[in-house]
Amino acid sequence: ASLAQQQAGEKGVGVDVELISDIHIDNATFLERNFTEAEIKYCQSKPVPQDSFAGRWSAKEAVFKAISSYAKIPSSGAGASLKDIEIGSDEVGAPKVHLTGKAAEAVKAAGVKNVTVSISHSGSYSVAVALAQ
Amino acid sequence: ASLAQQQAGEKGVGVDVELISDIHIDNATFLERNFTEAEIKYCQSKPVPQDSFAGRWSAKEAVFKAISSYAKIPSSGAGASLKDIEIGSDEVGAPKVHLTGKAAEAVKAAGVKNVTVSISHSGSYSVAVALAQ
Amino acid sequence: ASLAQQQAGEKGVGVDVELISDIHIDNATFLERNFTEAEIKYCQSKPVPQDSFAGRWSAKEAVFKAISSYAKIPSSGAGASLKDIEIGSDEVGAPKVHLTGKAAEAVKAAGVKNVTVSISHSGSYSVAVALAQ
Repeated sequence: ASLAQQQAGEKGVGVDVELISDIHIDNATFLERNFTEAEIKYCQSKPVPQDSFAGRWSAKEAVFKAISSYAKIPSSGAGASLKDIEIGSDEVGAPKVHLTGKAAEAVKAAGVKNVTVSISHSGSYSVAVALAQ
Repeated sequence: ASLAQQQAGEKGVGVDVELISDIHIDNATFLERNFTEAEIKYCQSKPVPQDSFAGRWSAKEAVFKAISSYAKIPSSGAGASLKDIEIGSDEVGAPKVHLTGKAAEAVKAAGVKNVTVSISHSGSYSVAVALAQ
Repeated sequence: ASLAQQQAGEKGVGVDVELISDIHIDNATFLERNFTEAEIKYCQSKPVPQDSFAGRWSAKEAVFKAISSYAKIPSSGAGASLKDIEIGSDEVGAPKVHLTGKAAEAVKAAGVKNVTVSISHSGSYSVAVALAQ
């Protein structure tokens, strides 16, 4: 994003919806490739780990899209693993984005100052929306 | 949010998805605890009240999350009832947020200047997205 | 939106969810009324055209709501066809909004400088979120 874009307060937006049953939490390789140790521990401590993993997955995808649209990063070119987009919890329990590796480099290069995300799930679906600004 | 956050144009975002059938509109106590008289009248006047109540409910939840993430309000600590987040309609039919009670106090204290929300439903689900700025 | 609104960085937000099977892509009249030639060509080239048309449809609806809420345009009064809201792809594959006809006139009149949208689909649903700023 250009300085003009930033001064205009422009934003990148990302949304993701997932059929919760599509997230294969019994596949350890899948989990370890996409979630950090802290995320795995958190989701497994929740009443319905399947729902929590799906929510976290939706949040990662939404953040990736918000960053990509802001910074014009090609999905393939970024080389960022979803593991580089960690979803934690802030002091009031709301999801908090922590970027590492190539995702952190990309937002730094693009001048993104803040990335926020919200997550919800109900019935068979999880949904997340992210803003990069 | 700090003055620096406000000047940077930072936003709080909230999303909510609901399985429409989860909203028990035959439960008068539930309705009266969570919806204002104007909301109940509005939803009951619509062709499919169940869909309208679910959409309004999603909007309330999305607004609550957007405000909470902006103002760092704990869900429990806020003490805000969803009834304090009234969803009306503006002059062109778009949903309009009207805050009262503890929700109004919280946004005032946090310096939130504007809260907007959009609602949609299709099939078995309603979805809403809110911005606090 | 007033100049004060713009300087405050205020945004219009729009969300849309669609049951994918509700989009009748076998109805040529429906397609031609709502999608541009480029959109039809694009969606028909994708592995699952039904999903792509539904995603594009959701994006058009989300953009319409974001613009309407920002510019206070009544749904009926705008006279904008969804065909005036074209969803293309930018250089990195993210959806890109191109407004023509009455939709273009409306955003120009309202002082909207930028409209962005994100799309997702999973299972039986598509979802899109748009920002007008």
